[in-house]
Amino acid sequence: VAAPGRFTLGELAAALGATLEGDPARVVTGVAPLDRAGPADISFLTDARHRTAARASRAGAFLAPADVTDLPGPTLRVAAPPQALITLLRLFHPPVPVSPGVDPTAAIAPEARLDPTASVGPLAVVAARARVGARVRVGALVYVGPEAEIGEDSVLHPGVVVRERVRLGRRVIVHAGAVLGADGFGYASGAGGHEKIPHVGVVVVEDDVEVGANACIDRAGLAETRIGRGTKIDNLVQVAHDVAVGPGCLLVAQSGIAGSTTLGEGCVLAGQSGVGGHLEVGDGVRVGAKSAVLADVPAGRTVSGIPAMPHARWRRVVAALPRLPDLVRAVRPRGATDDGETP
Amino acid sequence: VAAPGRFTLGELAAALGATLEGDPARVVTGVAPLDRAGPADISFLTDARHRTAARASRAGAFLAPADVTDLPGPTLRVAAPPQALITLLRLFHPPVPVSPGVDPTAAIAPEARLDPTASVGPLAVVAARARVGARVRVGALVYVGPEAEIGEDSVLHPGVVVRERVRLGRRVIVHAGAVLGADGFGYASGAGGHEKIPHVGVVVVEDDVEVGANACIDRAGLAETRIGRGTKIDNLVQVAHDVAVGPGCLLVAQSGIAGSTTLGEGCVLAGQSGVGGHLEVGDGVRVGAKSAVLADVPAGRTVSGIPAMPHARWRRVVAALPRLPDLVRAVRPRGATDDGETP
Amino acid sequence: VAAPGRFTLGELAAALGATLEGDPARVVTGVAPLDRAGPADISFLTDARHRTAARASRAGAFLAPADVTDLPGPTLRVAAPPQALITLLRLFHPPVPVSPGVDPTAAIAPEARLDPTASVGPLAVVAARARVGARVRVGALVYVGPEAEIGEDSVLHPGVVVRERVRLGRRVIVHAGAVLGADGFGYASGAGGHEKIPHVGVVVVEDDVEVGANACIDRAGLAETRIGRGTKIDNLVQVAHDVAVGPGCLLVAQSGIAGSTTLGEGCVLAGQSGVGGHLEVGDGVRVGAKSAVLADVPAGRTVSGIPAMPHARWRRVVAALPRLPDLVRAVRPRGATDDGETP
Repeated sequence: VAAPGRFTLGELAAALGATLEGDPARVVTGVAPLDRAGPADISFLTDARHRTAARASRAGAFLAPADVTDLPGPTLRVAAPPQALITLLRLFHPPVPVSPGVDPTAAIAPEARLDPTASVGPLAVVAARARVGARVRVGALVYVGPEAEIGEDSVLHPGVVVRERVRLGRRVIVHAGAVLGADGFGYASGAGGHEKIPHVGVVVVEDDVEVGANACIDRAGLAETRIGRGTKIDNLVQVAHDVAVGPGCLLVAQSGIAGSTTLGEGCVLAGQSGVGGHLEVGDGVRVGAKSAVLADVPAGRTVSGIPAMPHARWRRVVAALPRLPDLVRAVRPRGATDDGETP
Repeated sequence: VAAPGRFTLGELAAALGATLEGDPARVVTGVAPLDRAGPADISFLTDARHRTAARASRAGAFLAPADVTDLPGPTLRVAAPPQALITLLRLFHPPVPVSPGVDPTAAIAPEARLDPTASVGPLAVVAARARVGARVRVGALVYVGPEAEIGEDSVLHPGVVVRERVRLGRRVIVHAGAVLGADGFGYASGAGGHEKIPHVGVVVVEDDVEVGANACIDRAGLAETRIGRGTKIDNLVQVAHDVAVGPGCLLVAQSGIAGSTTLGEGCVLAGQSGVGGHLEVGDGVRVGAKSAVLADVPAGRTVSGIPAMPHARWRRVVAALPRLPDLVRAVRPRGATDDGETP
Repeated sequence: VAAPGRFTLGELAAALGATLEGDPARVVTGVAPLDRAGPADISFLTDARHRTAARASRAGAFLAPADVTDLPGPTLRVAAPPQALITLLRLFHPPVPVSPGVDPTAAIAPEARLDPTASVGPLAVVAARARVGARVRVGALVYVGPEAEIGEDSVLHPGVVVRERVRLGRRVIVHAGAVLGADGFGYASGAGGHEKIPHVGVVVVEDDVEVGANACIDRAGLAETRIGRGTKIDNLVQVAHDVAVGPGCLLVAQSGIAGSTTLGEGCVLAGQSGVGGHLEVGDGVRVGAKSAVLADVPAGRTVSGIPAMPHARWRRVVAALPRLPDLVRAVRPRGATDDGETP
């Protein structure tokens, strides 16, 4: 059982750099959400929206921003509650230590280069000339292909596939079932069918990237598919061949980027959105949920819709859409089917 | 080879509780669809829509509802043909018996607790303190993480990943490649980038749930992501952290639910639909294919569109959409770009 | 390290059937894109669009179509540049030879039938009565289920799952994490919940098909789910039970086809598109990105939208959509909410 921690509020205030309103000797033994916390738990508000829920909470103590007062228990006040929450969670749930070494059931090629501080789980495969850096954790049933490189302190969860020559930076986290380096979807189509274009490029994943479960990042045709430093990719996301994603982006679940497209720094693709191929998406662009970007987007824009348009315009369009049947009735335009096509 | 069964129509009538019109001594040796069945097969209509195909079928016998007459062969009549079809299929295709025991190539941690009637396939991994219940089938190359629990009679198909502390109920089926318990997609974003919020909660999957191939159900931040009893999840579905899906729901392929959203009992998400985060979707709500729910939905509603609106309204809107270009021509509104944004 | 080749332009001209403009003795040692190529590389234009980039390239030689002149280096002219590029890539990046034989860590059932020229990677599983043909490559951590058949020269990348009785033709490529033959999503729903319909059919994948990473192709209820010869399926695509996909189709990433639908020959589903269940889609139909086909589509059509309409009409509709708010303002139709439903 993951033994819960045991801290006094005074200890927590010191660890979080917080101002404590209440008894520093009071002990808490767990962190819990407002609606589930009991008297032995500390709970938290990351912003003032949860004020009402907090005042009804049975928590024994609270982590809160400066502008929330009158909480029903001792309160630790911090300037940046989300970051303080991370510290708090790490105190109560420290990462499970992993012993260095290779599980005897793993299949390690003789020419693989494993740092002695790395750990390799049961039934993992590390192929010839792969490099696995210091303190890397290769989970159970993971495949690391020939000449792949896994930078130090990275974590590959069970069932991940990293194909040949793919390079991961430091502190990269790859969740279960993700596939890095499958061939891009490229064919020369003609009378004889679709002839496969060899994909001999690589995938480069920079430092501090996280890749979600069952996500796919394809290798490039000749050069590289690149994921910029600190970018976070959610589950079931598709990144096609020769894509370049800038640093600090967020690609939310089930979004996709088609081949040879470039995203700038700090872009956000909301859930189930998509970006077409051979496009340029500037820094800081935000794409709404379920939207489809089918043209270049200048830096700083927020876009939504299929195809994507400026978000403010999209909001007006969708607000007007329910009036469309009334409009048709009111105007009765001629030329019901003006295009000679059957519906 | 899966030996086909051999039954007389009298035997089948008894097993299905059916009324037989025809010779009870007639033998059939297989079940086949109407267009593929031959004289040795029994075929079936689950409703009257397939009446015409049935009358043209070469099947040797039919399973049919009461209101379909004049079929070209002996007919077994039942009140509920879909349920009777399931019984029929189980007679002809009984589940392959699995021998209890652990394949010698599996990697079982010494502290794992396996029921002696469970079976564990080749090259599967069961980690420390995991519990595997009676008659569970752990497929080849499956990962069951530390302290995970797999309830009795559950089946994990090859390549499934169940991460630490995830709990599955009884008779749960998880298809190949599904990932249960990956970290939720949560960060505290600031000037220093996206700092990962530890996800220390769990996933709880209740009895009789089925999870499709390569689907993902993320673990909660602190508490639990829960899938209600009897809910069925199709392939490539995403269920984010802290989601609660009620009992008896159907989540069709490639649909997704964003973090902290609650679905009631008996909801249906059609294919490629999505539900945004922090929403409440009431009992019995049905979401149309490719739709996006971006606001709470009261119980009982059927909604469609992006964003989702009442389904009847959406039907009128999409019926009117092809008239929109004519409307613009007829009305010629001023203010072509009224929003100061370039297209 | 994948040793790059070393060829004279004369050798390349002969191998490609190209007309050389320049010195046949000049040596190139690699293939690179226009913007990355240096003097030792040959680069390429597959069509005239890249003319400007080519003229700025530092490449030592070019592969180009007949209508692009004035390139800044020796030029190999061919009639079909995309096909010639494939030949060129294969010269410089010949497939890594694979030694026949079974890795000692693989788990092969005694009754499996492996061709002696097949190779089976580390920790792969081949179950009883499975057949693996000549020169097949079964990657690491792959599962080949009971009675499955893998045709000659096929490649299963790491982590692929091929369930029982699924049949693959010759030269089939399946990328990492793909699942072939999971149960279809079919239930008889009633008062007692959703009762699972046994799926006892198969998946048949014809020759020269490619299946993307983490894609899913479900087995049929009774008969077969079939993927036609030469069809290419991208990552994270869903093909449901009893679907028939014709030959030569392209199913782009994250697209999906619901149960019992038929696609003709040479269809294209663009990224994130979907086709509903029990539909007929004719030969040569093209479905736009993010579109949803909810009705039969006659052969030869290009359709887009949700629901899909003729592509030309959809283009007019989306061009008119931004005018909709102005239209509402100009016309002010009565009956703001004409349907008695709250928004």
